[in-house]
Amino acid sequence: MIEQVEPIGYVRSTRSEAVDDGWDEVTASIGLDADRYDPRALAGLEDFSHVEVVYLFHRVDPDSVQRGARRPRNNPAWPEVGIFAQRGKNRPNRLGVTVCALTRVTGLTLTVTGLDAIDGTPVLDIKPWMAEFGPRGPVRQPPWSHELMTAYWR
Amino acid sequence: MIEQVEPIGYVRSTRSEAVDDGWDEVTASIGLDADRYDPRALAGLEDFSHVEVVYLFHRVDPDSVQRGARRPRNNPAWPEVGIFAQRGKNRPNRLGVTVCALTRVTGLTLTVTGLDAIDGTPVLDIKPWMAEFGPRGPVRQPPWSHELMTAYWR
Repeated sequence: MIEQVEPIGYVRSTRSEAVDDGWDEVTASIGLDADRYDPRALAGLEDFSHVEVVYLFHRVDPDSVQRGARRPRNNPAWPEVGIFAQRGKNRPNRLGVTVCALTRVTGLTLTVTGLDAIDGTPVLDIKPWMAEFGPRGPVRQPPWSHELMTAYWR
Repeated sequence: MIEQVEPIGYVRSTRSEAVDDGWDEVTASIGLDADRYDPRALAGLEDFSHVEVVYLFHRVDPDSVQRGARRPRNNPAWPEVGIFAQRGKNRPNRLGVTVCALTRVTGLTLTVTGLDAIDGTPVLDIKPWMAEFGPRGPVRQPPWSHELMTAYWR
């Protein structure tokens, strides 16, 4: 079963290349498609401090999508783990999901900080972040994932 | 630009209807498509306590998708907010994103608790939850969203 999705808008960012780290330094905006949406689609969103953005890693060549296991960032110090046990972009369906801070909503445009998506990225959904949608119960994760994330945002 | 996505697997759950509340009571499983994946795709995932699941609200009629504003759950006590300021399922692209607890990985099957997706739901991605992917900075959200979530998980 193949499903179709259509971008609701696009990212505008000063970053136009996929860099590994420092994403919380980046201010970006998301502009909704004016042919399909009006500002009512965003009514009340400014009452939330954070949004969850679902987007497409559109620069990833579908032929380079991984379906098995590999070392994250090809780092020999880290174990080989399955594509669904890491968050790298060369993944089936090329979907990214990120919680970022919402700083302003103006018309059809959201200004955000900490969105790890480059300029021109197609956005598929925007959801308000509710604390209740975080993990229930204590979080456990392997050491390599903490190491990988050390400089990801800052 | 229309993009195509293809399920990586499907949800098996004792819940076959979209009920509003009590999702953390539900144990479900996700079975990866055996024609396209082998267990290497999940290698190392059991080192994470939680996974983030991206799925399709496949029972939502595309004609009933909302693009403007409405009251969440049509509750007259709550304000009318835009579709991107709520997490209801009748949304453009019909994508759901949920963090749930991972209890077991066996072959191509993940057993999870707290997945708010009904039996037969197509799964588009599975990502390990890393604490670092939570919101940076304090979370602010409107009162209606806390009220809505009161019994969502329990």
